[in-house]
Amino acid sequence: MTDPAPLQRWAVRIEYDGRDFVGWQRQTTGLSVQQVLEEAASRLASGRTVASITAGRTDAGVHATGQVAHLDFPAEVRLNASVVRDALNFHMKPHPVVVLDARSVDLSWNARFSAIRRAYRYRILNRRSPPALDDGRVWLVKRPLDAEAMGHAARYLLGRHDFTSFRASACQAKSPLRTLDRLDVSRSGEDIIIVAEARSFLHHQVRNMVGTLKLVGEGRWPPARVGEALAACDRRAAGPTSPPDGLYLTAVGYDPDPFVT
Amino acid sequence: MTDPAPLQRWAVRIEYDGRDFVGWQRQTTGLSVQQVLEEAASRLASGRTVASITAGRTDAGVHATGQVAHLDFPAEVRLNASVVRDALNFHMKPHPVVVLDARSVDLSWNARFSAIRRAYRYRILNRRSPPALDDGRVWLVKRPLDAEAMGHAARYLLGRHDFTSFRASACQAKSPLRTLDRLDVSRSGEDIIIVAEARSFLHHQVRNMVGTLKLVGEGRWPPARVGEALAACDRRAAGPTSPPDGLYLTAVGYDPDPFVT
Repeated sequence: MTDPAPLQRWAVRIEYDGRDFVGWQRQTTGLSVQQVLEEAASRLASGRTVASITAGRTDAGVHATGQVAHLDFPAEVRLNASVVRDALNFHMKPHPVVVLDARSVDLSWNARFSAIRRAYRYRILNRRSPPALDDGRVWLVKRPLDAEAMGHAARYLLGRHDFTSFRASACQAKSPLRTLDRLDVSRSGEDIIIVAEARSFLHHQVRNMVGTLKLVGEGRWPPARVGEALAACDRRAAGPTSPPDGLYLTAVGYDPDPFVT
Repeated sequence: MTDPAPLQRWAVRIEYDGRDFVGWQRQTTGLSVQQVLEEAASRLASGRTVASITAGRTDAGVHATGQVAHLDFPAEVRLNASVVRDALNFHMKPHPVVVLDARSVDLSWNARFSAIRRAYRYRILNRRSPPALDDGRVWLVKRPLDAEAMGHAARYLLGRHDFTSFRASACQAKSPLRTLDRLDVSRSGEDIIIVAEARSFLHHQVRNMVGTLKLVGEGRWPPARVGEALAACDRRAAGPTSPPDGLYLTAVGYDPDPFVT
């Protein structure tokens, strides 16, 4: 038996435009962010395979301004933080994926399992005209939305609950229990911004919560019905899944945070 | 001699992504925003020609979130504000141009000559990594910029001056005198936002001011040198023209404003 080749682990903070991809994870159906990142890393490692693990496996069409992943390079490749960032960015061109920051981490550190917080932002464009500048980046809702009512409804979801009603049928998590720490709704001109934070989320949880809050914003649901939908523990009791276009993974939290020195 | 056909004039507020266009004005070299708008308007007028006049003839690559133009339709076409907005948006698809609002105006009202104020926003992305989400929408400046020094320098340009030093050689304005009412510089995270307001601007004036302020932000120019460049009345005394990517025409002011009812 031989020991595995020694590795060095790098944490990277990443921004991407989800429109061009089948999602984070490799698929046979098209290009993924993971493939773009790992192929660029492999170029840095003279063609050897470099595997990655990510904090959040975003769906097709979902964007990120603060995704985090780690990459395992062969130990003998000479790297530093600027080289990892700039060389990965060079090799990922022209794909809309960039590394914002890179940090050397211990092999015990894991982008997914060390994460203690995920933050998402969802952007609704609330007006009659479609977006000329932000097509694929927002959810266009033409009927006027009451952000205050949506914010009131959001409070029913805060805390530790069984989120079965807001969970995709394909969700592979063992438990439907999650603790939602933040779900804020605010209006800024024609934009409705929803910020969600938790240690972790179920599959489609943010998009299902947003799709449900939109029913409240339109006046079709009273805010209290969101609490009833949660209590029902039945996906059919909540609203539809909002499109991926408006969703951004904005931050992943660690303690200690390798990106804060 | 016959009278010209009677017309009805509509003011439209427009958003567009400048990346796809040769600029506002029709050119033989490619597609312009004007052509997309006028061809859509012509469809509404059963194929008859509809001419437009705009408040700001933006250059290739420059964006707008609040451009204003007027369109002269034959008087007998039955129109109302929702029809003008929604039908133009339908016919302009899939081009990244949308009408946000439409208002019926007198034939004495002119989108260009009635305008008393133009507002532009310029967005610099100040970080090492290129933009994944905003390629073509920002000017990437990698060296750290001192926004405070830029704001101090900007004050030398406020007021009524001969702006020859900040004027494109191709500028067709009769006088180089302009009154700059606002030139604010602020930082928001990795963004440097510059807001400029005046009754009117010379050709490339905003981009030349931004290109000059960037030299101050990098520490290559002391702020006072911007005042000296202005006083020189010589284009070679000021800094280079910043790229169109970061520039947005955000608002055009009128008194009374047809869009404020």
